[in-house]
Amino acid sequence: MIVDIKSPVPSDIEIAQAANLRPIREIAAELGLSEDDIDLYGKYKAKVHLDVLERIKDRPNAKYVDVTAITPTPLGEGKTVTTIGVSQGLHYIGKKVFTCIRQPSQGPTFGIKGGAAGGGYSQIVPMEDFNLHLTGDIHAVGAANNLLAAAVDARIMHENELSDEKLAKALCPDDRFAPWMYARLKKLGISASKPSELSAEDRRRFFRLDIDPYSITLNRVIDVNDRAIRNVIIGLGTKDDGRPRQTGFDITVASEVMAILALASSLKDLRERIGRMVIGTDRNKNPVTAEDLGVAGAMTVLLKDALMPNLMQTLAGTPAFVHAGPFANIAHGNSSVVADMLAIKLISGGYLVTESGFGADCGMEKFFDIKCRTSGLIPNCVVMVCSIRALKMHGGGPKVVPGIPLNPAYKQENLELLEKGLCNLEANIKIALRFGIPVVVAINRFVTDTDAEIAIVKKAAEAAGAEGAFVSEVWAKGEAGGAELAEAVVAACEKPSKFQFLYPLDLPIRDKIEIIATQIYGADGVDFEPAAQAKLKLYTDLGYDKLPINMAKTHLSLSHDPTWKGVPKNYRLPVRDIRASVGAGFLYPLCGTMRTMPGLPSRPVFMDIDIDLETGKVVGLS
Amino acid sequence: MIVDIKSPVPSDIEIAQAANLRPIREIAAELGLSEDDIDLYGKYKAKVHLDVLERIKDRPNAKYVDVTAITPTPLGEGKTVTTIGVSQGLHYIGKKVFTCIRQPSQGPTFGIKGGAAGGGYSQIVPMEDFNLHLTGDIHAVGAANNLLAAAVDARIMHENELSDEKLAKALCPDDRFAPWMYARLKKLGISASKPSELSAEDRRRFFRLDIDPYSITLNRVIDVNDRAIRNVIIGLGTKDDGRPRQTGFDITVASEVMAILALASSLKDLRERIGRMVIGTDRNKNPVTAEDLGVAGAMTVLLKDALMPNLMQTLAGTPAFVHAGPFANIAHGNSSVVADMLAIKLISGGYLVTESGFGADCGMEKFFDIKCRTSGLIPNCVVMVCSIRALKMHGGGPKVVPGIPLNPAYKQENLELLEKGLCNLEANIKIALRFGIPVVVAINRFVTDTDAEIAIVKKAAEAAGAEGAFVSEVWAKGEAGGAELAEAVVAACEKPSKFQFLYPLDLPIRDKIEIIATQIYGADGVDFEPAAQAKLKLYTDLGYDKLPINMAKTHLSLSHDPTWKGVPKNYRLPVRDIRASVGAGFLYPLCGTMRTMPGLPSRPVFMDIDIDLETGKVVGLS
Repeated sequence: MIVDIKSPVPSDIEIAQAANLRPIREIAAELGLSEDDIDLYGKYKAKVHLDVLERIKDRPNAKYVDVTAITPTPLGEGKTVTTIGVSQGLHYIGKKVFTCIRQPSQGPTFGIKGGAAGGGYSQIVPMEDFNLHLTGDIHAVGAANNLLAAAVDARIMHENELSDEKLAKALCPDDRFAPWMYARLKKLGISASKPSELSAEDRRRFFRLDIDPYSITLNRVIDVNDRAIRNVIIGLGTKDDGRPRQTGFDITVASEVMAILALASSLKDLRERIGRMVIGTDRNKNPVTAEDLGVAGAMTVLLKDALMPNLMQTLAGTPAFVHAGPFANIAHGNSSVVADMLAIKLISGGYLVTESGFGADCGMEKFFDIKCRTSGLIPNCVVMVCSIRALKMHGGGPKVVPGIPLNPAYKQENLELLEKGLCNLEANIKIALRFGIPVVVAINRFVTDTDAEIAIVKKAAEAAGAEGAFVSEVWAKGEAGGAELAEAVVAACEKPSKFQFLYPLDLPIRDKIEIIATQIYGADGVDFEPAAQAKLKLYTDLGYDKLPINMAKTHLSLSHDPTWKGVPKNYRLPVRDIRASVGAGFLYPLCGTMRTMPGLPSRPVFMDIDIDLETGKVVGLS
Repeated sequence: MIVDIKSPVPSDIEIAQAANLRPIREIAAELGLSEDDIDLYGKYKAKVHLDVLERIKDRPNAKYVDVTAITPTPLGEGKTVTTIGVSQGLHYIGKKVFTCIRQPSQGPTFGIKGGAAGGGYSQIVPMEDFNLHLTGDIHAVGAANNLLAAAVDARIMHENELSDEKLAKALCPDDRFAPWMYARLKKLGISASKPSELSAEDRRRFFRLDIDPYSITLNRVIDVNDRAIRNVIIGLGTKDDGRPRQTGFDITVASEVMAILALASSLKDLRERIGRMVIGTDRNKNPVTAEDLGVAGAMTVLLKDALMPNLMQTLAGTPAFVHAGPFANIAHGNSSVVADMLAIKLISGGYLVTESGFGADCGMEKFFDIKCRTSGLIPNCVVMVCSIRALKMHGGGPKVVPGIPLNPAYKQENLELLEKGLCNLEANIKIALRFGIPVVVAINRFVTDTDAEIAIVKKAAEAAGAEGAFVSEVWAKGEAGGAELAEAVVAACEKPSKFQFLYPLDLPIRDKIEIIATQIYGADGVDFEPAAQAKLKLYTDLGYDKLPINMAKTHLSLSHDPTWKGVPKNYRLPVRDIRASVGAGFLYPLCGTMRTMPGLPSRPVFMDIDIDLETGKVVGLS
């Protein structure tokens, strides 16, 4: 550990600031990275160049571990703490280890939740950088998304004002097609070597995107919790201020651009995915893409540095990539493919530990069926985090609400509530086993948990087919507190992998959704509402039916209803609508209303955050 | 030069990418900066820690040179090229030199104008980084501004929903005032050591900000040219989506936070200025500040790294700070105070060359009366950039419009037009002389300019009191092309400085505005419209009358009317309204309508920008 362990455990930021950080250059050197392989961002962060991958591509992969959780309470069950903790534990028992984790949004950092760098003696440091701008990747995503949005409204306005001839002249002033225009020519089946060769009809079809303002699905984004801009009318003012229409702002991490950044496997792949992004349709219902708008190149330029993973360290001084952070409901909620591709080779002979968002039904299923499918990497072990608190909630315990003191039921021994809630752990273990991967249960022990409670959970986990359940005390004890868990992970990774996807891509969209609903969520079937039925047909016609499925569903229940705890049964899953993230490369059926822009509470955590002007240090960040 | 000079001159990006960049660590070392004094951002950018200042504060100041211009055409007259060029020229003749320049907004980079790193053989490199995210400072400004905006609307919503008692309980759950609350207690004249001691009336006054939604002057910001969000209605949706009101988005560099970043002289000063930012008033017309909202600390945390200047290099391999970029119309349009404070000591014995926005009536006047007043630094010389093209325009030449080919009148010798336009050069020289600073005129020579034309300008400049006029060929020839100009700057800097401000701060607001209007703009007087008259009284009552004046006026004329070229006479300056940037520390009278959010043209320059997937290099950035 690069920090001395104290008891009682100080605040997260006190621990982080007390750490004796290793220069990131030194950590990079241990990984075999030269100064030319990295770009330093200060002394404790570096971006790693992707061309390193070519040099190390023939090394054997490290063991690949995904940390997931049972269905959480709204407070979260310590998945990030455990992800970092099991990594530190692996280091403690003498293994090489690399941690790959998502970058959190700044919104929650200043809103209700606070930071997301882990906690206690299980953190990524420097935690201020982790929780704030880091190296600016989220800002780059926002800039790219918003450049695209501005391009859409500007194009609508200019097309309204210009004749076909003037539009053609404006876009191709020297009677030459720009390089990116050939994709659109091909799509429209037009062959011409220069604009003046186009027939009047083809000129119109080619230059006039004719975007239907009511079809636009692209929102603008901002990395702040700002409910007031969820629904807005833009384009007010005069003729020179665009055209009025209703639209909205999402938080930046909900942008499809973020999902693309997380799934792109190379700069070329990034460029192509950006180009495929669909912003809406024309008045004939044909999709309009970022490539059609001529902005995909500029967006890629804005993202070129963001595509390089950010190297940081854990409190054990071990390497960590912090890279990309797509929403785990409307997107796939997993850190980047390129970070894992690099780390699994850089730590060859060791362990790559990563985390997927929310519970096993949410982020883990997407980790397997979307992320692993994209990267081609095969996982060896799943760590399933659970807490006695969450299990009691699933057993019928009182409602858990952020910002309101926890009910005493959660702080006293209550074996009955716990027993009733074990079903949720069992169901989540079964979900993981369904993919052919061994499961190690990590019990994130709170000070109020009793030995009897722990023993019950251990027994249930084994009975459900897990390799075992192990108490994690990484928050209070650092790497030593994760040793037992780490040993179990090592043992599980030695088992032969029987990894399989949940569904093949070439099934019809409807079948893929039904498999997820019945086999993962335990529904009896799926009810497709009319909008969703129309999309089944539309997306099949458009050729999007070979994409994987990214269910947009609450993380607070195995079902679509956040109030149904435990293991909901005897229900059908309603699918309200289906949307397509063609650039990211998935369809996302909507099961309920997904909020893509949080709000600030009556007392946001930003009220505690300030600079100590004597030391220049940040205070109050949690 | 770190690049070989070719003829014909290649594109800006080709030149920049061909340069053999010096590691920034090496440049820092030459300046006496250790590895602990800087934070590297890759190999060619670094942030410099402000605590360096304490160590070098007793060194003599370098000579301080401001580059300004005559009243420009909408195309700009090469001020940045000349700023970098004269710096490179000083290096060429054996002087130590440091260049301090603003960071450009990404909006124009992708809109009409393209990049702003200079051009030809007079550039800051790497030009891609310069024109794109750099080290994320503008993103940090946007994040801070938008956190404040979200805090405003969230507060309005929560105050609407909560009783005084519940509001007090939410904000002080443990009956303790947060540290930042004492400023508000003092402002309201309330003495209490804990919330429960407050009378019902004081509790209401203290906790309820009672923001008048119609008074809010704070806009949200985004770093994209996006006219469609200039005027928006926010807060639509349901009860949980905030309260509807009309507002707007500005481009990020127009944020008061950017002006603050540029004027703050230390982290402490930054924290205090942020706290003083006024977002609007309560229903009793009292100003409501960022401090009142409890968000000033968090905003400062978001800006702590942004306050450190960014070290880069010119094509002569000399050091350059690229730092802050406030709008030059509603803000003061000058790069940061901290960069100049550091550079003037780091290059002690040499020359610090900086640039102010637009013409001498705009950015230079603000450079002297606002920036120099804040920094306490005294300039030694002004370089006045002019072009034959602009002088001809002032002489009555045809209208110059961006994106439309230049009229032949500007490409052929036309001594008559030129002679008629010389008055604008003379007026701008006199403006600079008014401050007691010697003026060196730089003629940014275009290939079509004739020797006879150059000779006329030289003669006129000398007659107007300049030290002389010198042809700058830095664009085509690099540092050698700036040698003659550099020699003239050296000579001018040897003259004793008689620097004086235009006005003392303790004059009434009205008088300060009248001095600028009559002595700088050549108006006969000022007409204050009723809104402006009301503000004269209001701001005097509020104690803002000791602030300097930051005129918000078109840069395309010495007057308020962009179509009046040459030297407008016999007119009165209309002041429509006056606004206050209390955090930045200036009042800005509005002379005409200032656009604070540009739009995208029918063919934005982003259409030329892409990544070369073979080399990973950016193409098409200009």
